[in-house]
Parts: sequence; C-alpha cells; structure tokens
Amino acid sequence: MNNEKYKIYLEESEIPTQWYNLRADMKKKPAPMLNPATLKPVTKADLAPVFCDELIEQELDDTTPYFDIPDEVLKFYKMYRPSPLVRAYFLEEALGTPAHIYYKFEGNNTSGSHKLNSAVAQVYYAKKQGLKGVTTETGAGQWGTAVSMAAAFFKLDAKVYMVKCSYEQKPFRREVMRTYGASVTPSPSTETEIGKKILAEHPGTTGSLGCAISEAVEKAVSTPGYRYILGSVLSQVLLHQSIIGLEAKTALDKIGVKPDVIIGCAGGGSNLGGLIAPFMGEKLRGEADYDFVAVEPASCPSLTRGKFAYDFCDTGKICPLQKMYTLSSGFIPSPNHAGGLRYHGMSAILSELYDQGLMRAVSAKQTDVFKAAELFARTEGTLPAPESSHAIKAAIDEALKCKETGEAKNILFGLTGTGYFDMVAYEKFHNGEMTDYIPTDKDLAAAFATLPKVD
Amino acid sequence: MNNEKYKIYLEESEIPTQWYNLRADMKKKPAPMLNPATLKPVTKADLAPVFCDELIEQELDDTTPYFDIPDEVLKFYKMYRPSPLVRAYFLEEALGTPAHIYYKFEGNNTSGSHKLNSAVAQVYYAKKQGLKGVTTETGAGQWGTAVSMAAAFFKLDAKVYMVKCSYEQKPFRREVMRTYGASVTPSPSTETEIGKKILAEHPGTTGSLGCAISEAVEKAVSTPGYRYILGSVLSQVLLHQSIIGLEAKTALDKIGVKPDVIIGCAGGGSNLGGLIAPFMGEKLRGEADYDFVAVEPASCPSLTRGKFAYDFCDTGKICPLQKMYTLSSGFIPSPNHAGGLRYHGMSAILSELYDQGLMRAVSAKQTDVFKAAELFARTEGTLPAPESSHAIKAAIDEALKCKETGEAKNILFGLTGTGYFDMVAYEKFHNGEMTDYIPTDKDLAAAFATLPKVD
Repeated sequence: MNNEKYKIYLEESEIPTQWYNLRADMKKKPAPMLNPATLKPVTKADLAPVFCDELIEQELDDTTPYFDIPDEVLKFYKMYRPSPLVRAYFLEEALGTPAHIYYKFEGNNTSGSHKLNSAVAQVYYAKKQGLKGVTTETGAGQWGTAVSMAAAFFKLDAKVYMVKCSYEQKPFRREVMRTYGASVTPSPSTETEIGKKILAEHPGTTGSLGCAISEAVEKAVSTPGYRYILGSVLSQVLLHQSIIGLEAKTALDKIGVKPDVIIGCAGGGSNLGGLIAPFMGEKLRGEADYDFVAVEPASCPSLTRGKFAYDFCDTGKICPLQKMYTLSSGFIPSPNHAGGLRYHGMSAILSELYDQGLMRAVSAKQTDVFKAAELFARTEGTLPAPESSHAIKAAIDEALKCKETGEAKNILFGLTGTGYFDMVAYEKFHNGEMTDYIPTDKDLAAAFATLPKVD
Repeated sequence: MNNEKYKIYLEESEIPTQWYNLRADMKKKPAPMLNPATLKPVTKADLAPVFCDELIEQELDDTTPYFDIPDEVLKFYKMYRPSPLVRAYFLEEALGTPAHIYYKFEGNNTSGSHKLNSAVAQVYYAKKQGLKGVTTETGAGQWGTAVSMAAAFFKLDAKVYMVKCSYEQKPFRREVMRTYGASVTPSPSTETEIGKKILAEHPGTTGSLGCAISEAVEKAVSTPGYRYILGSVLSQVLLHQSIIGLEAKTALDKIGVKPDVIIGCAGGGSNLGGLIAPFMGEKLRGEADYDFVAVEPASCPSLTRGKFAYDFCDTGKICPLQKMYTLSSGFIPSPNHAGGLRYHGMSAILSELYDQGLMRAVSAKQTDVFKAAELFARTEGTLPAPESSHAIKAAIDEALKCKETGEAKNILFGLTGTGYFDMVAYEKFHNGEMTDYIPTDKDLAAAFATLPKVD
C-alpha cells in the first residue's frame, strides 16, 4: 500500500479559471424566481436592492456555460486550493470493501468548509461595486466564518446573523468571526423588525436559517452601502461551488478513474451542486452516466419528504419565491447537530434535476451519522463535520453494498468540512444523549398547509 | 502575483524515509541524562520500565545520523504529509517588506499540530513491542490529541493527563480525544500518588506540564503492559520531528531558495529542533550558515532567562535529570494561553546548541503574540495556534527589520498548528482582558534555589 497515492493534489496552475454553470446544459431549466409581491418572474431591478449587480447577472443567467473567475478571487483561492482529493484506503480496509472510495476534502481552510469558495467570490463583487459591507446569516457557522475571512481580506464590513441554536452550541465560532473583524448576532434578534416579529410569535425559538436570512436581508436593504449575500440555495452559489467538482474531475481524469457513484450531503445544496456539476453536465449532454446521491438529515428531509412547489426562501417571506423541494418556510426543524443542513428548502437547480429523475436522495438519522463520523475519524484521521458525515454515512453504505455484491465501484463523496467546532454534538453522542428526531407526517402536513398558493 | 506559487507541496514519494539525528553531527554532544537516584548516566535498564525499548535506543544514540522510518509510520504519514510550505505573499504585502517569508505549516491534520509526527512513531513502537497502551501528558492538548489519533489507528489504549488550566480553557479538546477513544484526566489528579502530593502541597494549582508528566510516568510504571510517551524535550522526539525540516529543505531546494533566518517557537523544543535539524546539520558540518531563532513566551523564558544546569524533567522528580536550560522543575508558570510553551525546561540538544552560540533566542509578550496572530489570520487566512504565533511575531519583527534596511532576506518559520481550540484565549484578547505576565528576577531566583545540586 505504501506505493499507492493517498492524496491527489493538483498544481496551483491547474485551479480552474472558470466556473461552470450547470443550467446551461439543462434542457428543462429551473423555474424562474418570482417577485413575492407580484408573483411575476423577478427582474434585475427587483433584486438590485438585495444583491450585488454582478451576482444578479450570474443568478439569472441560465444559458452561459462558463464564467471567468476574477483574478482577485483566483489569488485568494491559492491560499487553500486546489483542495486534496483523497483515496480512503484506511476506511476501505476497515470496511473490507472491494469499492474504491475517494473524497474531495474542502475542510482544509480556517472556515472549515467549502463555503469559502463562494464567500470570496461574493465579497469580491461587493468590493468591486464599491459597497461598504455585506450582511448574511449562518447556520453551523461555517458560512459566517467564510464571509468573515473574505471580508477581512477585501477590507469590507461583515454583519452576520447566526441561528440561535448554533450560536449557543458553538460559542467559539463567534470568536473566530471576531478575529476576522465581523460582528455576530444570534437570530432571531431585536435588531430587525422581522426578528422582533418572530420572537413575539415564537418566544423561546432556537431560530432557523430561514429566519436568519430574513433578518440579514432586512438589514441589507435598510442600510445604505450594504448588500446581502447567501451561502447556499442560490444558483450563483452553485456556480461558484462548481470549482469543487471541476477540480475533482481533473484529478480523477489524471489517474484515469471514472466515479460510479457521487455522493454529497445536501442542506441548501451548495456542496452537492458544486461537486456534481461537471459530472452532471456530462450526463445532461449524454456523454456519461453517474449515480448521484443527495444525503439529507432525517430531521429535515426536504428532498425525500418535501413538496416540489413555489415557496419563500425565508421565514419572513420577504425574499423571492423559488420553485424547489421544500418543507415550507414555516417549518422550523429540531435543533439537531447538523446545523448546516437545517434549511427548509433545496437549490432550485438540484430540485429540478431530482424531479427529472437525474439524481436520487436518501436521508440519514443523526446517531447513525455520528457513528459513521467516528469510524471515519479513527481510520482516515480527519474529524469530520456533522454535515459532511451524512455523505460519509451514505458512502459507507454504498461500500458495504459492494462488499455484498463483490463490485469494485468507484465511490466519490464530498467531505465538505471539519468538525472542530462541533464538539458539543460529539460530546452528546459520546454520552449517549443524542436522539433521532424525525418529523411525523402530521408535522409535515401542517407545514405544507402554510405553502403559498402559486399557479 | 497570480503566476507565483503560494504553496509548495512535495509528492508523497518525496516524504523522507529516514529521520535525521542532529546529535551525530554535534562535536560536543548533549550531556547524558542522569539516574535521579544514583546521579550516574542512565542505562537502558534504567529506562526500560518507562519507555519502549526501541525508543530508548533512539534516545541514547548520539552517533547514528539516520534512522529508517518504519513502513507503518510512513503509511500513516501519508494521511497528512508532506505538509505544505507556504510563501506568505499576503503577509509580506501587508507589512510592505522586501523580505520573502516562508512557513512550513504543520497544522494540516486533526491533531492541529506537528505533534502527530512523533506520536505516530512512538505509538507504533509501543504496538511493535506488544504493549497494551501508553500514558502521556498534554499541555495545550495538541499532543494528547495526536497520541489519541495514533492510538486509535494502531488500536492501543491511551491514557492522557491534561494540565488542568488547559483542560478548563479547552473543554472541546477532551471530546476530540474521546472521539479517538482516549481517556483524559485533568492534572494534578487523585489517580496517582504524586498527583495527591502536589494537590496537598499546592491546593488550587492550575497544574503544569512537569506535574502532568510525573503522573503519567507513575501510571505507566505501575500498570503492566503500559509505557510512557512524551511529546517534546526528548532527543527521540526531535529525531522524529526532523521530518519537518527535511521536507522544508527539500521544498526550498526545489525552488532554489536558501533561508537566511529560521524561526521556531520553543516550549520543550520539538518543533524548533525538528525544523532546524537538517539546516543546523549543515552549519555543524561547516557547509552553510543560518541565523536560527528560538521564540519563547516572556512568561516562561527558559532559554533567555533560565540556567544551563542539570534538572528534573518533571515536578515530581521521578524522571531522569537532564542538563538543559531550565527555570527549575519547581517553577509553575502563570496560566497564560500558550499552553504548549509552559514547560520549565528545554530540549538538551537545543540547550547545548544555544550554549555553544549556534542559535539565538528571543522572548515575546502574550498580547504582542496575539496581535501578530490576528494580523496573520486576516492576511494569510489560517487562524494560528497561540504557540505558533510566537514564531509569527518574531518573523514579522525580522521582516520589519528588512523593511528598514531594505534587505530581501529569506525568512522561514514553523507554523506549528492551528488555534481552533484556543478561542477562549482569542476571546480574552478581543475583550482586552489579556495581560502580560513576566516573572520577576526574584521569582526566578526562588525557583533556581530549588535546582538539584549536581557536579
């Protein structure tokens, strides 16, 4: 085994210089976002008070296949990219599987996840537009940290609303963001009208991403020189995250490996959408076939149990409506430990691909996910984020299926981040205090009843 | 700048296959360790109840220049090595210095530091000897985590005594170690005779590395099938850590760069000794000259203010005596935040080299170190460990000197680890609650009075 390569690093000169826009290859495109007031497709003018101008162009463009990565962003990428593609020999050995498991490791930077890939792009465009600062929300804290790092680098102000249960479970995340000069507020807060309203209606709520988004958007549109940026769900984010898949594909091509199964955890869809992008492009163009698997928490199962419908992206219902798999913006998931996967909806692109049967989805229970995380840590070394561990769980399941059938499939999964700020969750797991919350059909029916009526 | 290389990665096939034993090239060798009972040089038989047999061979051998790295250890190294050598373009730009700054980044693994390099070697030899488990101490928690990871990999039991103030400052470190299956006890504890004695004499003590070492050694010698392993100070540890310097040198040679100044933080000396090893070898053989700089905290200044004398390695005085720069084993440093640099003594090898004038030492105040850490995080991205930030501080000082003189020196420093588990310290710094403790001459004189009398 000592002659095998464990990590496949590309050269810095091999970092892709363009992002890939998966929508360009989709015959049936994702449905347009709707203006919540008029229920008509949003225009650039509708979005201009919320988003940076160039990001709006990227958001609405579903035909241009490639966008140049700006030099300033590429320069930042060189701090931590290319990220390693790792052959999981030790995990394979522990499982006794004939499968070959590869993972693309995006936790190799201080934000601890892939989120930095889009944060640096979005903050760069805000800087280019001459803005003073950006507002955003964060669930697990990885996106907020990523935005803080990017804002420090480009010398912009960053104002982060952090979902309250994560704020409390991850006290040190706040200090990392402060190290980079950001301000962090637990959400819902009394700093915004929508925060006050939510607190009045749901006293004692532990918050949700949908609610933190509302607060951040309100702050952005009500503060001159500020715009809002979002770490997942949006098509622009999947565009930026395509760098994950582009690098992974380049590295696998180099060693002559074609993955059979490609697995990613899915909250809002940014990691999965980025990882699968170039492979799905091949599938859409009829050049190759792959088995794509989205893995979501059983506690927040938007693909596996949600509805494909127009819904608000935020709890406060001030954002555009998007057609997506959703549990409804009124769904407040249990405060489980995969904070980054607690979003009620799913990227419009992934929702459309799933609806067309181009990918499949599975859900995983929290305790099973932590069991997989522990096995991974002990064999492969790296302590994974709870979010990423959903993908590990599914990859292990696939590898064990191969053990039964004797197939030597190539399995690729996205290891989106590290769990260094998730030790409260690990502690609960070690102490046997972790429970598996799964919403009942009745819970979901009640949530679905709050979906907006759109023809 | 986009054409420049930021990170210089070696191929996995370029990982050194031998460790370098610096002592082989020293004309005047470090003085022998003494048996604390007889005050005669220790024998292999003296050490056998404490250390693994092969590690004793390595500890006592000051003539063999190279030791083969076992295949099993090399295999583990491939999980996270070669570690990147990074050109700090962004820091250079922020400082406006003509200097070229490079850092060897050892924080790229879950233990968060270079400690894993020696942990895996020591645990491997314990496994090879057929032992059941190992005991050890940890200060900042990095060594304990490293041992836990290595023990999980080789399926050995790990029992870790963690300095109480670190245990309290870094609650999540314990959970990382538990994830890898280790048991962790705050030290001093009531689990050992020496722990009980120290608690009786110093009620309310926050502990020290010297005291935790005593407990771990007592536990090892009193438990069948166990041996003690140590993460710094010992010559065997510097041997294993030579991989840092060997890789750094190979990478710099590849790009044709000869460092002028080589800087490392120094607690027990493992990182510094490893980083400088092959360069110091050249200096000892008269092949090249370098300016070597040890950086220690002003609160625990063993090189800059200590005595070069025989002293106990532990507070309980049960370990061999070693001739080294020391503040005395009775010195209990303030509970500052560079937990990993709180050891009262210094590696015998580095002490001897320092005494011979082959390297220099500086000390840095805690708040200055955190200022440097924050600047580094904001420019280079990575959030550094407080320990590592001592080296950053000194590297910045050197780079600013170059700015004054106009010299384009090549500065190499060791970025030993990340600060993700040090956010309590960062929080104190952000809140302006961090103080600079510097022992008075009277404090030190009182400590020196407790040094053993050895001719």
